Amino acid sequence: MQPSLLKNNRREFLKKLGLTSIPFILPGAAFSKTVVHENIKSDRKVNFEYDGIFFSPQEYIEKLKFINDSNPIEGDIYGNGGATLALEQKFAELTGKEKAIYLPTGTMANQLAIKLLSGEKTKVIVPENSHIYRDEADAAQSVHSKRLVPVRNNKAYFDASDLDQTINELSRNEVFKSGIGTVVVENPVRRADGTAVPLNTIKGISEYCKEKGYRMHLDAARVHFAEAFYGISVKEYASHFDTVYISLYKYLNAAGGAILCGDASLIDEVTHQIKIHGGTMYQTWNNTSMALHYLDGITARFNKMADATQVIVGQLNALEGVEVQSVPNGTNIYQMRLVSSIDGNLLQEYLETNHQISIRPPNEKGVIRLAFNESILFQSVDEIVKAFQNAISA
Amino acid sequence: MQPSLLKNNRREFLKKLGLTSIPFILPGAAFSKTVVHENIKSDRKVNFEYDGIFFSPQEYIEKLKFINDSNPIEGDIYGNGGATLALEQKFAELTGKEKAIYLPTGTMANQLAIKLLSGEKTKVIVPENSHIYRDEADAAQSVHSKRLVPVRNNKAYFDASDLDQTINELSRNEVFKSGIGTVVVENPVRRADGTAVPLNTIKGISEYCKEKGYRMHLDAARVHFAEAFYGISVKEYASHFDTVYISLYKYLNAAGGAILCGDASLIDEVTHQIKIHGGTMYQTWNNTSMALHYLDGITARFNKMADATQVIVGQLNALEGVEVQSVPNGTNIYQMRLVSSIDGNLLQEYLETNHQISIRPPNEKGVIRLAFNESILFQSVDEIVKAFQNAISA
Amino acid sequence: MQPSLLKNNRREFLKKLGLTSIPFILPGAAFSKTVVHENIKSDRKVNFEYDGIFFSPQEYIEKLKFINDSNPIEGDIYGNGGATLALEQKFAELTGKEKAIYLPTGTMANQLAIKLLSGEKTKVIVPENSHIYRDEADAAQSVHSKRLVPVRNNKAYFDASDLDQTINELSRNEVFKSGIGTVVVENPVRRADGTAVPLNTIKGISEYCKEKGYRMHLDAARVHFAEAFYGISVKEYASHFDTVYISLYKYLNAAGGAILCGDASLIDEVTHQIKIHGGTMYQTWNNTSMALHYLDGITARFNKMADATQVIVGQLNALEGVEVQSVPNGTNIYQMRLVSSIDGNLLQEYLETNHQISIRPPNEKGVIRLAFNESILFQSVDEIVKAFQNAISA
Amino acid sequence: MQPSLLKNNRREFLKKLGLTSIPFILPGAAFSKTVVHENIKSDRKVNFEYDGIFFSPQEYIEKLKFINDSNPIEGDIYGNGGATLALEQKFAELTGKEKAIYLPTGTMANQLAIKLLSGEKTKVIVPENSHIYRDEADAAQSVHSKRLVPVRNNKAYFDASDLDQTINELSRNEVFKSGIGTVVVENPVRRADGTAVPLNTIKGISEYCKEKGYRMHLDAARVHFAEAFYGISVKEYASHFDTVYISLYKYLNAAGGAILCGDASLIDEVTHQIKIHGGTMYQTWNNTSMALHYLDGITARFNKMADATQVIVGQLNALEGVEVQSVPNGTNIYQMRLVSSIDGNLLQEYLETNHQISIRPPNEKGVIRLAFNESILFQSVDEIVKAFQNAISA
Repeated sequence: MQPSLLKNNRREFLKKLGLTSIPFILPGAAFSKTVVHENIKSDRKVNFEYDGIFFSPQEYIEKLKFINDSNPIEGDIYGNGGATLALEQKFAELTGKEKAIYLPTGTMANQLAIKLLSGEKTKVIVPENSHIYRDEADAAQSVHSKRLVPVRNNKAYFDASDLDQTINELSRNEVFKSGIGTVVVENPVRRADGTAVPLNTIKGISEYCKEKGYRMHLDAARVHFAEAFYGISVKEYASHFDTVYISLYKYLNAAGGAILCGDASLIDEVTHQIKIHGGTMYQTWNNTSMALHYLDGITARFNKMADATQVIVGQLNALEGVEVQSVPNGTNIYQMRLVSSIDGNLLQEYLETNHQISIRPPNEKGVIRLAFNESILFQSVDEIVKAFQNAISA
Repeated sequence: MQPSLLKNNRREFLKKLGLTSIPFILPGAAFSKTVVHENIKSDRKVNFEYDGIFFSPQEYIEKLKFINDSNPIEGDIYGNGGATLALEQKFAELTGKEKAIYLPTGTMANQLAIKLLSGEKTKVIVPENSHIYRDEADAAQSVHSKRLVPVRNNKAYFDASDLDQTINELSRNEVFKSGIGTVVVENPVRRADGTAVPLNTIKGISEYCKEKGYRMHLDAARVHFAEAFYGISVKEYASHFDTVYISLYKYLNAAGGAILCGDASLIDEVTHQIKIHGGTMYQTWNNTSMALHYLDGITARFNKMADATQVIVGQLNALEGVEVQSVPNGTNIYQMRLVSSIDGNLLQEYLETNHQISIRPPNEKGVIRLAFNESILFQSVDEIVKAFQNAISA
Repeated sequence: MQPSLLKNNRREFLKKLGLTSIPFILPGAAFSKTVVHENIKSDRKVNFEYDGIFFSPQEYIEKLKFINDSNPIEGDIYGNGGATLALEQKFAELTGKEKAIYLPTGTMANQLAIKLLSGEKTKVIVPENSHIYRDEADAAQSVHSKRLVPVRNNKAYFDASDLDQTINELSRNEVFKSGIGTVVVENPVRRADGTAVPLNTIKGISEYCKEKGYRMHLDAARVHFAEAFYGISVKEYASHFDTVYISLYKYLNAAGGAILCGDASLIDEVTHQIKIHGGTMYQTWNNTSMALHYLDGITARFNKMADATQVIVGQLNALEGVEVQSVPNGTNIYQMRLVSSIDGNLLQEYLETNHQISIRPPNEKGVIRLAFNESILFQSVDEIVKAFQNAISA
Repeated sequence: MQPSLLKNNRREFLKKLGLTSIPFILPGAAFSKTVVHENIKSDRKVNFEYDGIFFSPQEYIEKLKFINDSNPIEGDIYGNGGATLALEQKFAELTGKEKAIYLPTGTMANQLAIKLLSGEKTKVIVPENSHIYRDEADAAQSVHSKRLVPVRNNKAYFDASDLDQTINELSRNEVFKSGIGTVVVENPVRRADGTAVPLNTIKGISEYCKEKGYRMHLDAARVHFAEAFYGISVKEYASHFDTVYISLYKYLNAAGGAILCGDASLIDEVTHQIKIHGGTMYQTWNNTSMALHYLDGITARFNKMADATQVIVGQLNALEGVEVQSVPNGTNIYQMRLVSSIDGNLLQEYLETNHQISIRPPNEKGVIRLAFNESILFQSVDEIVKAFQNAISA
């Protein structure tokens, strides 16, 4: 199903227009204005490479200066007070949780969540393709004394039935029980090209876990993309989990950092855990003030970005020799396939040189991975589509 | 291939006789004498249920008394000296390793071996159907900070190629490397009905691991069955591994305990590890003196037992309505299938009541699992076969 | 204060007789009969070396045989059922706790207790001279992630005020709090010559801990000596703690093993912890049946032993050139000082050769440490005192 | 002994002048020029509160902008490349070690050093007053399975003899040995008012440890103060240790971060350890570029600062009713005592309001702690002394 079809009423007008078939008829004007961003060097640079704007050091400093000039940044001491506290409070509100806390990395956020949720129980059920299983270097086992049990269903995500099967197999095979503490969901799924887990699937998993007494953690590193493309609020997603982690550097443009949200009693324990694992940095405002800035108004901006994505994708698909598709239940990641007469590397070079648009080079199969993000609002939809059109003609 | 065909020359005469087809022609006399065991109550009781004799408390005490009467048992203090030291020295010699040490359980032996062999490296590759993966309650993760990576090849054991595939997949999927410390082999494989891993397979795995720099551990809980049925010495098996664990209670008839063998430098570290994990018991001679007794002359007795097994199996197969088979590369475990006119439960009762022979009840598929062990020598082959014959007639 | 003065009314008659000054007047008859023990080789051997009878392997086997002949021992499987269950139930009753569980060692019992009681809190307050601090090889830190904080008051035991001082100092010195989980008391104190912690001191500590929310563990390895010498029941001691550990080999004469008692919910968790730490042995009846035997009637026997101790000590003190004293609040451990004309080594040899009485050799200061235990009942008080008298004359 | 007397020849001229007794005769001109720092708001603000300049967010951003304008900052990805690599290389050179690595916190640097240096050995010997013992929240025990053993000598630092006494006592008291892995020295000692450990003391400890086979770690968070006040190079200090940690935020003015230096083989292992403990942040240049900037020319600037400190202290001591002293072997921390007619709080207010000089308020004993740091170069020595003079007159 196309993301647009899943979206809320606000998107219905696009659907009714039969957007994907007649994109050029759509009055581009609706999307023609760039979001007027602050006057920094990156203001016209559109990237289809990352989940966020991705600043150079110079741009980052300029942006911090802009933020501070508008509204003086308040510092923090060891993560207490100032911009960091403000960010934590905003995230608590956004996710509907009692409390939120800043941590240096998503790895620490994920690991401490599963550690504290699981208590003395040893097993943590995770998606086989998740960051927590594949990209955290066995921290669960080597630092936190937990065993990650992957659900291996060869799909982008698992549902309650897959979960039940994995747990039953464990139970059949093992005489001595070490206890299942936490079940983890990642949404969207990075290693499945940004697939969003359907809300009903999440509800099914959540009901199953509540019945069995398992706690639940959401790796929501990029959750605003799911919100934007499916019109399901972050709060709604978060409501089905005990803890939720959101990244500060992927689309909130900080140089690093993560947020973990949950019950106050659990989050209060996290402070000590961060300290003993060596994560209590002297000052954190240089990351949190940036994230705070981008969190302000994010839903509106991301909705614009999702709308613009639909239009750009529709119009690119109308170009001769170009096919742009997302995976089923996709969010901001698309695959662009080109007829053999179009050279992807030349396309990349042309866009970069002439239009301040950066894309990745084609992979070994000739497919170019396009990540739509907030930077697409730095130029109008027309400008972007024409840039591709020019590049292909050239 | 039948175990008997794999065995050394000593078995050739059986093979030449075409044993399995004409078992009754074989002069039973060759096996007609029971091994004259000591005069304890269990001396006539044959069980097809366990890997060993399995004493009741009364029999255990009588046996200890017999052992002590023959040759006074020397006590130990915290595992030092006496029967325990004697047993350790015997096992070091038997496995060709520098040193051996007594531990309270196989779980502790396996876990400490992989912990010490792996050092700072996190991953330990294990058979998916192994005791260490399925039956040690996630001790590796929850106590020893190791991640067990199962080789999932849906076979009784893995070979170097399966191992390589598992490692390559890990390597492809994971960006951050946590290091592979140890590769584990179990032989024979309990959860595969006593399948023995072929020596060539072990050699292949060993060469692969040496090349890659991985250490190797052998869970040889029941290794003398592989020795007896395939004529490959325990020392030969052990020579391909850094450490070897052997159980004291499975066929050496102790009430508990395990032995770990390896380089002196590693075994010396084990002493401290046992202490901090709470395994340094005050006295251990009540287990080690029993194992020491049964270790003496074991190869000769087990060879007799393996020979008797061949004959009994052959003769049982000649009975109307009875089929007895082992798995490929099997050792002492056989499956007995009966035609529907023979009631397995009545068979069990008859053998118990009239012949001091105990078997397990049929499983849900009507199959009776027969474990051949040293106790089959307590009656002559003729007696045993006739007992089954009588039972079936009755 | 002398132990006898602290004891309950049952001892008043001794006190009234002014026992220590006129021991020979006391009618020896009251203690002249040995407890008629079973007919094993050790039946006349009195030792002043250990806390229990200390069997050789041969004696141990004979004793097990005797026990089994009287009442067949029921076996257990992995610590479930049989003599082990019976022992656990008896200990639960004895300590007034909901449940008890067998473990291979006191180290494991102590460590698992403090681990489970403390949860995520890191600090465990212990006596500086305790087994848990000095004799468990840093298991708390290296295996269980706990920090032991010793109370260093240079006394045999600490009271609530010492405890408060240690905690206040920690609090003053450390900015980041890692949480105090458990407070440990050892009673009697092995490294203080068997000093018993006064009940009022324990009550004071217990009130303090309850107010602060700290859990409490009692290392009661030798607790029946405190019961016997002070007339305070094991149940009374145990009532002030969450968990209580008692040794099976120190005076219950098993070859090894320990018991941990506490709430059912906590003890139920211990089963899994024993498994993952490698302590789940195949059979344990060979230790538990022995302990069970000696637990039966222990209070009566130990009271006799304590009475006999008073008389023996009194009469030895009346010998020319001999002084026997315990530490303040002592239990079964006494120091024997001899005038220089008496050679301690010759004394030892004489007692051993002629009277089946074993004592330790004098230490570097010429002091002989006498440990009174149940074996003193194997001869009459008169016999024992006369043995010393003869030895000194000779 | 006064720091100046310990210093190298370069300071001899001050000593010869009898500086402390006739400070006003000394031509102030030698120190009258402020170091011309970059044009940021903090350029005239002198603080006697911290070890460094301590920027507000606005000043930090301005400073980063200044740095980037002079020489564009190169970014890093997950700590690889750019300013971070440059900083690591500079620190390796500075300490004479093979390699250096950036970590988020000093706690992580200290803990990973002792973990990796100690291997399977459990005990780490530390100063009782050290950051690692008192301020890292028991991370050693709760995360890294190490036991910290404090040397309790009631002095600012320990020497080889104190160390030997602590180790001998351990050895006497404990039967089971868990192994001593690492010995830690902190220099200067924060909880002893910046006391520097004499080089000879360090050499003595180092020789002792080499002989015993213990590894050594230096917590050199503020090491440049020792270098500046005693003329002993960082490299000389570092040469006696296996690993050295230096802070980036204490006097190098970064918002956070730490550096660990040592052998390449050990530092290479640290990368993985940082990852699994959750410390691998996305970008780190915003800390490392700042530290890199301040590391450039630090020795020259700190020498100036140390000289200026001597002069200021001397001149303040010449003021009526003022006494300024450091502890024996002190570095940059001094205690200012005032006669009762001078109100410390008014002094603080006056300096702040009229001279851009900040000091801490007097403590409960009326003593004001003065921390000399690089910011004292932002005004001339005359200006600073006159400011105090004016304040006292007023």
